Amino acid sequence: MKRRITTFLLLLVAGTATAQEALWGGSGIVSPEVHEDGSVTFRYASATTEKVSITGDFLPAERRQTPHGEVTGPGMAAFKPDSVEGLWSYTTGPLPSELYNYSLYVNGIKTADPSNVYLVRDIATLTNIFIVGGGRGNLYSVQDVPHGTVSKRWYHSPTLGCDRRVTIYTPAGYEQSEERYPVLYLLHGMGGDEEAWCELGRATQILDNLIAQGKAEPMIVVMANGNADQQGAPGQTHEGLYKPHTRLRRTMEGSFERSFPDIIDFIDKNYRTVAKKEGRAIAGLSMGGFHAMHISRYYPDTFDYVGLFSAAIRPDEKRTAGVEIYADIERTLERQRDNGLALYWIACGTDDFLWDANTQYRALLDSMDFPYTFRQSEGGHTWRNWRVYLSEFVPMLFKK
Amino acid sequence: MKRRITTFLLLLVAGTATAQEALWGGSGIVSPEVHEDGSVTFRYASATTEKVSITGDFLPAERRQTPHGEVTGPGMAAFKPDSVEGLWSYTTGPLPSELYNYSLYVNGIKTADPSNVYLVRDIATLTNIFIVGGGRGNLYSVQDVPHGTVSKRWYHSPTLGCDRRVTIYTPAGYEQSEERYPVLYLLHGMGGDEEAWCELGRATQILDNLIAQGKAEPMIVVMANGNADQQGAPGQTHEGLYKPHTRLRRTMEGSFERSFPDIIDFIDKNYRTVAKKEGRAIAGLSMGGFHAMHISRYYPDTFDYVGLFSAAIRPDEKRTAGVEIYADIERTLERQRDNGLALYWIACGTDDFLWDANTQYRALLDSMDFPYTFRQSEGGHTWRNWRVYLSEFVPMLFKK
Repeated sequence: MKRRITTFLLLLVAGTATAQEALWGGSGIVSPEVHEDGSVTFRYASATTEKVSITGDFLPAERRQTPHGEVTGPGMAAFKPDSVEGLWSYTTGPLPSELYNYSLYVNGIKTADPSNVYLVRDIATLTNIFIVGGGRGNLYSVQDVPHGTVSKRWYHSPTLGCDRRVTIYTPAGYEQSEERYPVLYLLHGMGGDEEAWCELGRATQILDNLIAQGKAEPMIVVMANGNADQQGAPGQTHEGLYKPHTRLRRTMEGSFERSFPDIIDFIDKNYRTVAKKEGRAIAGLSMGGFHAMHISRYYPDTFDYVGLFSAAIRPDEKRTAGVEIYADIERTLERQRDNGLALYWIACGTDDFLWDANTQYRALLDSMDFPYTFRQSEGGHTWRNWRVYLSEFVPMLFKK
Repeated sequence: MKRRITTFLLLLVAGTATAQEALWGGSGIVSPEVHEDGSVTFRYASATTEKVSITGDFLPAERRQTPHGEVTGPGMAAFKPDSVEGLWSYTTGPLPSELYNYSLYVNGIKTADPSNVYLVRDIATLTNIFIVGGGRGNLYSVQDVPHGTVSKRWYHSPTLGCDRRVTIYTPAGYEQSEERYPVLYLLHGMGGDEEAWCELGRATQILDNLIAQGKAEPMIVVMANGNADQQGAPGQTHEGLYKPHTRLRRTMEGSFERSFPDIIDFIDKNYRTVAKKEGRAIAGLSMGGFHAMHISRYYPDTFDYVGLFSAAIRPDEKRTAGVEIYADIERTLERQRDNGLALYWIACGTDDFLWDANTQYRALLDSMDFPYTFRQSEGGHTWRNWRVYLSEFVPMLFKK
């Protein structure tokens, strides 16, 4: 027996037992490299390239001409040939701790950084990301703390007549516990889906870290899909691998809002929840803020905490005329005020194209003596702000 | 009140309430477009581009010279200028139903297709994917059937002294049921991690579809991380957003295998499992096949079903000398044989660089009268084969 075994021994070196596919096109370049002082070096290897540039939200915004008119977007910076033949590089100055997005332009053609596998999808656009730690970036990074579970589940919506996909975060310790947990319903914007808050919003890391630091109560976070036309995110349903787009018919016209009790019912039946008003929060960004505003006032005594992040605060009359859930705004807001709320939190950046709409909505609330907290920030309608808003909102919830 | 509401009404068109970031760099191009006959058109828009090519596993393999010698890889094909100014395109002939991978070369620079957000990561390489339906591709597609839940959880491994991330599939109906379910432990290859079987192997879709068709029993699938040096996949741990690589120290040297009872214990404590031999299967690809082979014989009477997919079947003596779990191969295989197994399934492609190792391992089993089933396939060490093997293996498990 010994000999037989020896004869087939060691035909291979263990290190070669890798997927052949992965061997094609790999490169030894490290890019980006985040240095101790917060500066970052990007590298690109090509002997035949004439020009490499980078665009990203760590560069000052620039106004520029496009075929569609003048737009403001992130700035550009040029790589320089490195001392190593065929290597290009660009190094930033020290950057504040943050999560950043970027893309490369190689000979004028936009591309992802081939040395960076970390990409995020915002609707149909993929960009590379990196994190500069030390401050806020630490909150968006996976830390060596107890981790919650992130599940992609399907629930049945009788109202919409289909199964729908939902992302559910349960905090570390949930499975080992017999306690009941409060629930934050966290909603995405137009063109987003049930992936957005974890992928772009770093919700998993923010919750894990705030809970581990004792700054937030352990809570369940339910990230629903707010597009009534979608059963789930692009590529995750039987509609196949289609190109994501924002041309969705049933958004901000009542369908999702009317079906919201289906989600609450599913969560309360399937999780150990504090199934009453003081155990529920609802928040959303942009369209999700619109949803959170309407849902929270339409279903009375359901949510004790409401967060409107850069909320697309007002309905489009063409779509909402005659829709019950958008009617009687005054009466339902009054009822919401009179029922009492633990927190009604409105956040908006001064550069946000929804600033004026939010200002006017606050004027309405003021005129009604509707109590709310306003958080003014810098910047505009960006995930950078929404991560900040989530990080500030979550510690205010469910305080015992 | 009515007037006040009207004054802030309709400042925005709902359709503009989208993330600003996503608006930069979007394009209206559809690529790839899969036609009814299985042919596929790829498109690329650029007025300044001189050459666009595509490489993908639907093109015949080619041998070519590289700086590292002659290698065989997927072929290349050239786009042609389209009748639309500035648009390039390439259309294949009808392709067999399958999931395919590809990348573009634009003026000689490798890039992802900017119109296709569906990318998969194989170690440090990202490639676009598309599916041609009608046959096998349907099994890899999300269908309108009941869907299981996919959770990313963390379990504690006392043996490795850390928390570790694991992907767990529970079949549709699990949460509503009170029944116990059998468990398939499904292991990745060198350089892979707990993401690989769902991302590259389409395990979620294969299981959902086979179960819905009545071809497979409902089962839990546990996709563990087989790299003892990793707590989880790159980017998912406190080691940050580092570049994935295969230079892992503790693989195929006993650490993961020794810690395997930690996973089984976690699963049996946290899920309604059939916690005995007839309720357990273990399978893996390449390094995962090596793990499945050693784990299944070392822990007696634990698994009734074993699947070795393109298994890296033999240990590297330099790493395994003196390691208890790799010793006494004959005796433990004899015990495994004598205990009896429901299925010992070995699959390998004729072009696989591990073909000879698998042939010799089968000769050993033959010499021992160890019963096994051998599935010879075409092709090599590829995810295309591993998806096929999983699709064939799963229906043989846990038959009542």
